[in-house]
Amino acid sequence: MDLNLLTLKKIIEGFLYEDIGSGDITTNSIVPPDAGSQGYIIAREDGVVAGLPLTEMVFQMLDPEIAFRALAQDGQKIECSMVLAEISGNARAILTGERIALNLLQHLSGIATRTARLVELVGGNKPRIVDTRKTTPGLRMVEKYAVRVGGGYNHRFGLFDAVLIKDNHIKIAGGIRAAVEAARRGSPHTARIEVEVEDFAGVGEALSAGADIIMLDNMTPDRMREAVALIAGRALVEASGGVSEANIRAVAEAGVDLISVGALTHSVRSLDISLDIKEIKRR
Amino acid sequence: MDLNLLTLKKIIEGFLYEDIGSGDITTNSIVPPDAGSQGYIIAREDGVVAGLPLTEMVFQMLDPEIAFRALAQDGQKIECSMVLAEISGNARAILTGERIALNLLQHLSGIATRTARLVELVGGNKPRIVDTRKTTPGLRMVEKYAVRVGGGYNHRFGLFDAVLIKDNHIKIAGGIRAAVEAARRGSPHTARIEVEVEDFAGVGEALSAGADIIMLDNMTPDRMREAVALIAGRALVEASGGVSEANIRAVAEAGVDLISVGALTHSVRSLDISLDIKEIKRR
Amino acid sequence: MDLNLLTLKKIIEGFLYEDIGSGDITTNSIVPPDAGSQGYIIAREDGVVAGLPLTEMVFQMLDPEIAFRALAQDGQKIECSMVLAEISGNARAILTGERIALNLLQHLSGIATRTARLVELVGGNKPRIVDTRKTTPGLRMVEKYAVRVGGGYNHRFGLFDAVLIKDNHIKIAGGIRAAVEAARRGSPHTARIEVEVEDFAGVGEALSAGADIIMLDNMTPDRMREAVALIAGRALVEASGGVSEANIRAVAEAGVDLISVGALTHSVRSLDISLDIKEIKRR
Amino acid sequence: MDLNLLTLKKIIEGFLYEDIGSGDITTNSIVPPDAGSQGYIIAREDGVVAGLPLTEMVFQMLDPEIAFRALAQDGQKIECSMVLAEISGNARAILTGERIALNLLQHLSGIATRTARLVELVGGNKPRIVDTRKTTPGLRMVEKYAVRVGGGYNHRFGLFDAVLIKDNHIKIAGGIRAAVEAARRGSPHTARIEVEVEDFAGVGEALSAGADIIMLDNMTPDRMREAVALIAGRALVEASGGVSEANIRAVAEAGVDLISVGALTHSVRSLDISLDIKEIKRR
Amino acid sequence: MDLNLLTLKKIIEGFLYEDIGSGDITTNSIVPPDAGSQGYIIAREDGVVAGLPLTEMVFQMLDPEIAFRALAQDGQKIECSMVLAEISGNARAILTGERIALNLLQHLSGIATRTARLVELVGGNKPRIVDTRKTTPGLRMVEKYAVRVGGGYNHRFGLFDAVLIKDNHIKIAGGIRAAVEAARRGSPHTARIEVEVEDFAGVGEALSAGADIIMLDNMTPDRMREAVALIAGRALVEASGGVSEANIRAVAEAGVDLISVGALTHSVRSLDISLDIKEIKRR
Amino acid sequence: MDLNLLTLKKIIEGFLYEDIGSGDITTNSIVPPDAGSQGYIIAREDGVVAGLPLTEMVFQMLDPEIAFRALAQDGQKIECSMVLAEISGNARAILTGERIALNLLQHLSGIATRTARLVELVGGNKPRIVDTRKTTPGLRMVEKYAVRVGGGYNHRFGLFDAVLIKDNHIKIAGGIRAAVEAARRGSPHTARIEVEVEDFAGVGEALSAGADIIMLDNMTPDRMREAVALIAGRALVEASGGVSEANIRAVAEAGVDLISVGALTHSVRSLDISLDIKEIKRR
Repeated sequence: MDLNLLTLKKIIEGFLYEDIGSGDITTNSIVPPDAGSQGYIIAREDGVVAGLPLTEMVFQMLDPEIAFRALAQDGQKIECSMVLAEISGNARAILTGERIALNLLQHLSGIATRTARLVELVGGNKPRIVDTRKTTPGLRMVEKYAVRVGGGYNHRFGLFDAVLIKDNHIKIAGGIRAAVEAARRGSPHTARIEVEVEDFAGVGEALSAGADIIMLDNMTPDRMREAVALIAGRALVEASGGVSEANIRAVAEAGVDLISVGALTHSVRSLDISLDIKEIKRR
Repeated sequence: MDLNLLTLKKIIEGFLYEDIGSGDITTNSIVPPDAGSQGYIIAREDGVVAGLPLTEMVFQMLDPEIAFRALAQDGQKIECSMVLAEISGNARAILTGERIALNLLQHLSGIATRTARLVELVGGNKPRIVDTRKTTPGLRMVEKYAVRVGGGYNHRFGLFDAVLIKDNHIKIAGGIRAAVEAARRGSPHTARIEVEVEDFAGVGEALSAGADIIMLDNMTPDRMREAVALIAGRALVEASGGVSEANIRAVAEAGVDLISVGALTHSVRSLDISLDIKEIKRR
Repeated sequence: MDLNLLTLKKIIEGFLYEDIGSGDITTNSIVPPDAGSQGYIIAREDGVVAGLPLTEMVFQMLDPEIAFRALAQDGQKIECSMVLAEISGNARAILTGERIALNLLQHLSGIATRTARLVELVGGNKPRIVDTRKTTPGLRMVEKYAVRVGGGYNHRFGLFDAVLIKDNHIKIAGGIRAAVEAARRGSPHTARIEVEVEDFAGVGEALSAGADIIMLDNMTPDRMREAVALIAGRALVEASGGVSEANIRAVAEAGVDLISVGALTHSVRSLDISLDIKEIKRR
Repeated sequence: MDLNLLTLKKIIEGFLYEDIGSGDITTNSIVPPDAGSQGYIIAREDGVVAGLPLTEMVFQMLDPEIAFRALAQDGQKIECSMVLAEISGNARAILTGERIALNLLQHLSGIATRTARLVELVGGNKPRIVDTRKTTPGLRMVEKYAVRVGGGYNHRFGLFDAVLIKDNHIKIAGGIRAAVEAARRGSPHTARIEVEVEDFAGVGEALSAGADIIMLDNMTPDRMREAVALIAGRALVEASGGVSEANIRAVAEAGVDLISVGALTHSVRSLDISLDIKEIKRR
Repeated sequence: MDLNLLTLKKIIEGFLYEDIGSGDITTNSIVPPDAGSQGYIIAREDGVVAGLPLTEMVFQMLDPEIAFRALAQDGQKIECSMVLAEISGNARAILTGERIALNLLQHLSGIATRTARLVELVGGNKPRIVDTRKTTPGLRMVEKYAVRVGGGYNHRFGLFDAVLIKDNHIKIAGGIRAAVEAARRGSPHTARIEVEVEDFAGVGEALSAGADIIMLDNMTPDRMREAVALIAGRALVEASGGVSEANIRAVAEAGVDLISVGALTHSVRSLDISLDIKEIKRR
Repeated sequence: MDLNLLTLKKIIEGFLYEDIGSGDITTNSIVPPDAGSQGYIIAREDGVVAGLPLTEMVFQMLDPEIAFRALAQDGQKIECSMVLAEISGNARAILTGERIALNLLQHLSGIATRTARLVELVGGNKPRIVDTRKTTPGLRMVEKYAVRVGGGYNHRFGLFDAVLIKDNHIKIAGGIRAAVEAARRGSPHTARIEVEVEDFAGVGEALSAGADIIMLDNMTPDRMREAVALIAGRALVEASGGVSEANIRAVAEAGVDLISVGALTHSVRSLDISLDIKEIKRR
């Protein structure tokens, strides 16, 4: 898992605090402090799993001695009823952490599953399916991880790591050329410059201004194909807007390099996964 | 808006930091620091709006002098093309804050819209449509707010403010009676005690143990009706599991007091809302 | 110890930082970094101990290799001169952590001791002795823990986990019935509703409005007895205000279910406990 | 008020969060968001008030438009029934903040009152009544403020700002001289060096080692007088241990420069102060 | 100033806390709380100023009513004795904030001054003088700002916003081509890929692997000129290592696009600037 | 290392976050998660090393299983090419942490080296070379550590732990005597009182007011010698201002007790140290 663990730990701590607050009054009342338990994380529908290492972190932050054995790998296709992980240790920690662990795992697996479906639909690595900044606030790092897990790629992580010039920037700059030049001057030379255009005139201006990437906003696959021909390899081409499972194959065949899909993260259907406690031992 | 503003501010600050990081290199390169701008937040589909005051906070945290005029109220039914708010002030702040503001507004309005649809389907305030702890990690406070805005009600906020005894607690306690008694002893007298049951035997035990609320897990509407008759007002009755738009009316007619729906928050489809910049002034 | 350890760790870290700041200039100047030491935590007066696991955490946060052996259990009656724990390891960590460890242990043991005395005075578990929100700011979670350790029970943890309608709420609502109904509508169904009343009229209104708990504010034991008779089991009854060691037995005998005592936490006399260093080894 | 406001704000925010958590479900259910209210903070017993500016901060953090008019000054002697402050503004903010505001005000006024009593008993500014590090964890900054407000003085703020050599330091150093010399070498030249001694031999050694301050630990007033004569102005003299209202006058007359009293902060009796809501307006 | 103000505020708060801790005991003892003061920030040597808006923030965080009037602009050449800003308001806030304000201003002006000297030496905007990641820990955002203020440009902000393949990455990948391909696959398409090479073979491999930027590590100006000819515009060229005031002109004339200088931030000489209090009024 | 480790950990975490942000996209793309590596930290110039334990912490925070073997001790004189430490373990952690580890080590070693040079120039422990509050914001604790490591001593840590009365305090107090008396009253008795003076009149007033330490501001060595004679051991004497390698010996011979040097920390030249990866194993 290629995530910054220091940050991840803080994020998960925040999630645990949100749920546990001053304490799990149900579990603490009923479950003896030293009771042990063993459970299984089980898929309840088919999909692609993402987040198992985070699930492990959730439990181990509650009790470092929890044993967690993953039986699947993030990115793996899973089927309904498959056991994804086995967990054993302190019963209180397992019961208290269950919901947060599942909320994360289901959410991220939902994203990975949807990403994988789109990747399959375009049939290969070209064009890249990429995410957007339409992520759930607070979850960007892990949602973008889930997109990678599902076979997709990441667009920029935020406003800080790439230049994406949109219509409003263009208006205020007084044209695409002026905007691109200002961005070139004002940003590190390590950042590529992407320009969003709506028509062929925009494509032409962006090209002549030296844009590195051109985003075709809300074009039909046919017009995209024309744009790709016009650009002729002088810039990367990103298709954006209005992409669905129904038309993504056509968009891909238009020859673009990237297809960005906001819905990957802004409208997540969580994948059904449960934690089954199989055994409980009062120690 | 009945939210703890101190907490809300911290949460939103975190969202802004996630997106802006070391700075919006596009906007800072292109937009002069003193340029002004005016924009409109516009609905792109029908629904119920939730989160306008949060949107205002996003912009005002970037620049306290941003003027934000809401033209709709949280909870209001909105239609495609309706202007929800007018915003004017520093152009950099508006462009930099746009995505986070919309991510929040779209997500919460998605929740409110879905909640409102279910409330409408059950046709009134009885039974209450309630949320669960299957919320997006980090967003519980605001997602539960969106549920209220949509006409729903909140279940417990976390593990700390109510007792909900599930099958695993019952197993470890050695029965419903023992579990309820332990919980009664171990929790503040201000907390009601809810017990999840799967069959009529469970209903009976829970009643005789003095449960305040009985959650019927995954029962058919017909069996729920029987359970309600059995309980006969001695406890609140909550229907849980497998509730969909297709069957919620039937569940409601079974006579339960509450219907809890995890999908309200675990599988959110964001409502389409955009920010249109209408005018930009270089000052 | 049924506390949220993640939160507890943060709290204790804050306490350590408050005392240590940029460093313990006395100990660091005088004690070699690798000197070892052995000490005993010793009771200097009779009481009930609370907070030993927190004491252990204090030292182990300064040096994870400190060995801490508790010779008493939280909740145990202790006598003057009794050894409560043995601690050995790095001398700097022990000397630097001593004061914070003792400040916590003495404060919490003071609370547990006082709670135990009241519990003894009422002679059993009925009525419950409960705390209030009159806790020391920043210490609520651990002070409420100390109350439980002393044999008491917790009232609500904050404004977020229960409904307690006081005179001002009633005034603004225009009466008890209106207030109870508003609270019923506006709060999760898992929260019981408690109403503070000052006279029998209030008791009657609260009952008819369906209050779950009635708090008798500042009544004499005699009037409480009458109120209990009036309520006749239809609601829990909490005695509040003016309770002292002198009258608590009488209050208990009035038949109430709960006696809340603010002084348990707002006026704490710390229990005298010391750390005696018995041996110091320069390694 | 000579407190670091940036720090104070963070501390108070923490206190508010502890109590309010996910929201004041009682007040938010019952009180309309725009209702106004006016209240009075009233002394319920005689004492010395401390913390009024903090009280103001509590309310203004909940609503910056709350008007707070102090009718007394921190440090002033107050009498039962005296109005200490008038507060008006948003009713929700006043009701939600009431408890935290009072918890702080009562706690700090309790400390100031007790300090003032001891100052009066010693009859003047010599010797100084000083606090210790036996403060409530998390509250040191404000408790030490309350001691100053009551006419006392502060001992060191933590382990970082002064050198206090105790018996364990002496043991490990192999004697008072060695300890003082190590401390002189290892600490900033701006820190005075204080040594705790238990007998006249200790006094002699500390003097000859060049201690700046000598703490007489648990001596009788008579022995203190002898020690003071022995020291003869070559070091400041601090009396510590076993000081009570009964003997403080005698200790003072022994001629010491400082009397430190741990109980000022480790065993606080809060001063009774209430908030009376006089008027409520539905706007 | 194109900095993320939310982040900047937190950073400066941290700096103030580091210095003020539990309070400025000198100022609080001596200066009445309502005394007013007026001061001037004055250059004590020639240079380029950077950080005036941060200076203003320092004082206004201590007292929002401090009036700060900048008489110079960040980036301006200043001369010894020039008044950079006028400040007036609460005397405590001015005295307490002075050192932190100056520490920041002197440090950042030191960086801007050195950057400006190098920019002048290369005589224009081509090549760009750029910074590195050899910044002072904790100050990267503001140090990179000072570089821009001095006329320089920023290299990447961290490990997160650009790809820079160094010798160790190449070793582990098994060659430049493999490394570039892995980076292309594993990073957002918005990031350019820079490769550090030490010789012409490296240049060739990097070019054929499609590197966007080639960093010439520790080459002489003559060899750089050859490399530039070899690259022939197919990639940006960055000179790195061993650049000093003595040779920077020659490096620039070698035709590179960028010259990165670690010493801009890793070895800062602060610019001498003082705060003169001209007037103090006891109010 | 006599630093508060809890604080240090937080500081270093902040440094890591600043550099790594959402992830090291270069290393994560190219280096397999389980690749191992071995490296050596090597001096590239002569000096005094400081910060090796912090370097170890940097790597171990990224991966607790990194093995770090120091071959030199903080404070040791090192020569160019000397191996300071050997490090082995996860290759990603080593490559990702390298820059932050070196930035810290080079910065602190730069400070220690310069301090050691001055200490050598004064030839012994008398007078003490001391630092000032002119430290890099955010790094005070570790920079003061580096000064100690280099053989210097620390002046006060902040505004909170000592009294230093400067000209502005004197102006506002209406004279040195008044200022010293106010400070004596307003500060803990554990703090020495230092007064900055500019001439012999100031020296006389400070002495008669009972100052513990007199700072001679910007005097020539000859005048310092006279001042030292005048003071005659009644106060510690600190030389401040205008001290350089050229004149420090003369200043020392003037007989002062302390020489404070702001440039130790405000104008740091980092010591050249590198991390050489010697071996990389794909596991």
